[in-house]
Amino acid sequence: MAWTGDEQIVDGFVERAFLLPPTISESAIHGVYRTPLSGDTDRLVLVGHGGGNDDAHKHSGYIVAIAGLLAERNIASLSIDGPGHGDRATFRFEGHPGEIERAWASGGGTPGVVADWRAALDFIEAERGARPTGWWGVSMGTMMGVPVIANDDRIRIAVLGLMGIWQAIGPDLERLAPDVRCPLRFLVQWDDETIPRQTCFELFDRLGSTRKTLHANPGRHSGIPRFEFEASADYLSRHLR
Amino acid sequence: MAWTGDEQIVDGFVERAFLLPPTISESAIHGVYRTPLSGDTDRLVLVGHGGGNDDAHKHSGYIVAIAGLLAERNIASLSIDGPGHGDRATFRFEGHPGEIERAWASGGGTPGVVADWRAALDFIEAERGARPTGWWGVSMGTMMGVPVIANDDRIRIAVLGLMGIWQAIGPDLERLAPDVRCPLRFLVQWDDETIPRQTCFELFDRLGSTRKTLHANPGRHSGIPRFEFEASADYLSRHLR
Repeated sequence: MAWTGDEQIVDGFVERAFLLPPTISESAIHGVYRTPLSGDTDRLVLVGHGGGNDDAHKHSGYIVAIAGLLAERNIASLSIDGPGHGDRATFRFEGHPGEIERAWASGGGTPGVVADWRAALDFIEAERGARPTGWWGVSMGTMMGVPVIANDDRIRIAVLGLMGIWQAIGPDLERLAPDVRCPLRFLVQWDDETIPRQTCFELFDRLGSTRKTLHANPGRHSGIPRFEFEASADYLSRHLR
Repeated sequence: MAWTGDEQIVDGFVERAFLLPPTISESAIHGVYRTPLSGDTDRLVLVGHGGGNDDAHKHSGYIVAIAGLLAERNIASLSIDGPGHGDRATFRFEGHPGEIERAWASGGGTPGVVADWRAALDFIEAERGARPTGWWGVSMGTMMGVPVIANDDRIRIAVLGLMGIWQAIGPDLERLAPDVRCPLRFLVQWDDETIPRQTCFELFDRLGSTRKTLHANPGRHSGIPRFEFEASADYLSRHLR
């Protein structure tokens, strides 16, 4: 298993799908690789999607938007479906408590997430070469990002946020956060109705990076302002030069 | 009283001092007006200094640095000594509790601060014309900035921070913060040993602006990173266009 189709032009970038064998869990890794219209580039960002509903996956609207902002800055990006989401869904989300934990467990928990992203990055590096690499992911994209970054020093810069030391994944995040040492920006929504603000502060506090900046804006969990998305792409672009 | 000397070239900008009659307190207003080396410009920022020590005044090192960053971006700036500071000092600071409150009171309290800055802006507008105007001031620069902005709608954009709903000035800040309605950026130092972080969050929360972003970095009260200073000048520059 590897590339599963030809390149397609989508929303201002070129997208190609791939499929990789299972690592720790039983489900294969469904991914997409996105490059600027002008061709492949010498910088890469791993983009992790949010979770907890049926529209949260590697083709979510704001994930496509971030990929577009990165492509505009001549940066390639890579996304895979998180555990229990998108092409790896094992149940429909209905808004009940515990669904995120159930989805997370279906992918082999934190070790499964780390192994899947490592396999995806290995694949892209084998196909396209190793390059300066960053992470962009908020909410479940940070649930995935903290373990991945803590375990893979190829990732040298990150945008995280909308996540705290929280619920079932909390102990893993608390344990692994000090091992995140790259410069990072951490996004908080001041009126987050899903992840209590104070738990986000606790996760930010615990991250091991000496260069880390928290950006907080008024609004609910899904309301990150457009200018903050754009600024996060600029931030990654500056630091991957 | 008005301009008190010729223009002088200082640290990458041109500086000219002025002196205005007292407003509410008995002390005259000691100010400086700073313009890019290339001449006066069509944008202006009021820069308010921090307080509580003898080195805190209109010529403090980081105030001069901010004026330089603004001048690089073709923005003029205006600074006056705050109550009980610089040329308006009525006692030497020795680090005792209550000194800030004593200095603040010596200038006529919050109404005195508002009147002094209004007089200074009136003077510069009369001399050089009215222009899109912003505010930059953290710590005591925010103690001054919140009342000034709440009372003067000429100020359309602000950088604030390092201040909370705190000590004797707290009730005034709490009362006036909802009347601050311009877009703003609010800087917090995560390990602030002077102004407890939580009180800064409370002030940010209470500010009336719908577009407001909090930026927090690790470090102590005086440790705002250089990149955050530069980014704050970029922010003002973008919004004053």
